[in-house]
Amino acid sequence: MVNSCQSCSPCREGLEQYCEGPKGWTATYNGPQKPDGTNTYGGYSNNIIVSEKFVLRIPDNLDIKAVAPLLCAGITTYSPLRHWKVKPGQKVGVVGLGGLGHMAIKLAKAMGANVTVFTTSPQKKVDASRLGADDVVLSTDKEAMSKYELSFDYILSTIPTSHDINPYVNLLKRDATLTLVGALEPLEPGLNNSQVAFHRRSITGSLIGGIAETQEVLDFCAKHNIVSDVEIIPIQQINTAYERMLKGDVKFRFVIDMASLQQDSDQEIFS
Amino acid sequence: MVNSCQSCSPCREGLEQYCEGPKGWTATYNGPQKPDGTNTYGGYSNNIIVSEKFVLRIPDNLDIKAVAPLLCAGITTYSPLRHWKVKPGQKVGVVGLGGLGHMAIKLAKAMGANVTVFTTSPQKKVDASRLGADDVVLSTDKEAMSKYELSFDYILSTIPTSHDINPYVNLLKRDATLTLVGALEPLEPGLNNSQVAFHRRSITGSLIGGIAETQEVLDFCAKHNIVSDVEIIPIQQINTAYERMLKGDVKFRFVIDMASLQQDSDQEIFS
Repeated sequence: MVNSCQSCSPCREGLEQYCEGPKGWTATYNGPQKPDGTNTYGGYSNNIIVSEKFVLRIPDNLDIKAVAPLLCAGITTYSPLRHWKVKPGQKVGVVGLGGLGHMAIKLAKAMGANVTVFTTSPQKKVDASRLGADDVVLSTDKEAMSKYELSFDYILSTIPTSHDINPYVNLLKRDATLTLVGALEPLEPGLNNSQVAFHRRSITGSLIGGIAETQEVLDFCAKHNIVSDVEIIPIQQINTAYERMLKGDVKFRFVIDMASLQQDSDQEIFS
Repeated sequence: MVNSCQSCSPCREGLEQYCEGPKGWTATYNGPQKPDGTNTYGGYSNNIIVSEKFVLRIPDNLDIKAVAPLLCAGITTYSPLRHWKVKPGQKVGVVGLGGLGHMAIKLAKAMGANVTVFTTSPQKKVDASRLGADDVVLSTDKEAMSKYELSFDYILSTIPTSHDINPYVNLLKRDATLTLVGALEPLEPGLNNSQVAFHRRSITGSLIGGIAETQEVLDFCAKHNIVSDVEIIPIQQINTAYERMLKGDVKFRFVIDMASLQQDSDQEIFS
């Protein structure tokens, strides 16, 4: 996010990601710019001009290569964990172990929570434990899932596409919340309100974070020595990386070394 | 509700409706009783024995005939309006104008809210206004609906079956909540999390209320002189009433005069 209306109520409250201005906020990538409507190109740009209100300070003690995903996967998971007040000792579930999920584990652990990861991939169990998860559950194992009914204070689903959230709703305590940060689309199969109502649970969604909170997650990560697990690639490998990403074959974010862009012309790269 | 485990955490907090005991709470009607598992018959019984903890005091100034629905439609709508802290001057939406919806209007108005009713039936507009609604919107009118985007502090859906909640989610302010108290089943079409996440909205469910809160709604209604709109029938008309209810032809709750049961044998009534 590199701009917003800066005058609506959310903007004035430092929640620029929920900007209610007529054009909403401006995405760093592929976001029509004001006033002329041309696209933003984010980190692909040689130069980028933004208001000082949208500039963030990278803490000196963090490896800048591994900081980049904190500005997306990091803040996207940090903001809901904070907003729904995850506390030390609470039992937190993280659904899905990709770019967002691996940050959610690190951040929730640093907040003092007991973290359980839900995944469909048995091979991700080792990664989840290495990243700090206290427990890993195969979400396809109904018997294993049933042991966790009514036991979670908070669950964060990071799966980026529509998925069945009902098995996770069942695991929430009374009055507890499940937040979806990945699946920005209609949820199929349908949310079963019986499970929601019988324990007064809440289903919510959340989107990146405000600028002040994005600085907060950077400072929080500096304090707790947290960065993203990244694989650095030259831009010449972008198509291979894209295919690997689609297969979930990345631990856990690709970061492009933009210096590599200077070595080739666009034609050579993408031919 | 006429019993619960009385030892789990919700029961100890006075939230017996969310009882987590092995058998849960006991429904007034059609609820297997402890210890022998025979059914409860609620108001159809000649005599009923319950723990004093599940006995409520009916305020003297209310018409007892019109009080009966307060113990179901009344508390079911009162509890979420209180739990999600509806305040004077807030803009509250009520979806559906049946037994629950008509109580929601009266209670939310008595709490000082500005109430808008959403209905699919143009002929219900007059009723909604008479019951106190400040505004009535035909939910099938997309243009009318679009005028209310991002304007509601709270929306209560009382529709008793699966319905498309997405058009209502769009009407919630940022950080506002929609609660479903009627549709205890999977929601089709699916909840679109894009609309939820882009304004950090919450979708929740709620179930009747605890015993202390049920007494509270009775006392609240006594103070504000609120009862349910009822149509009293003798039990001999039960089948006709049932068919009328299925067609939505009731304003807004049938109440059976149980004295009429003494006039006939069961065989004569249901033959």
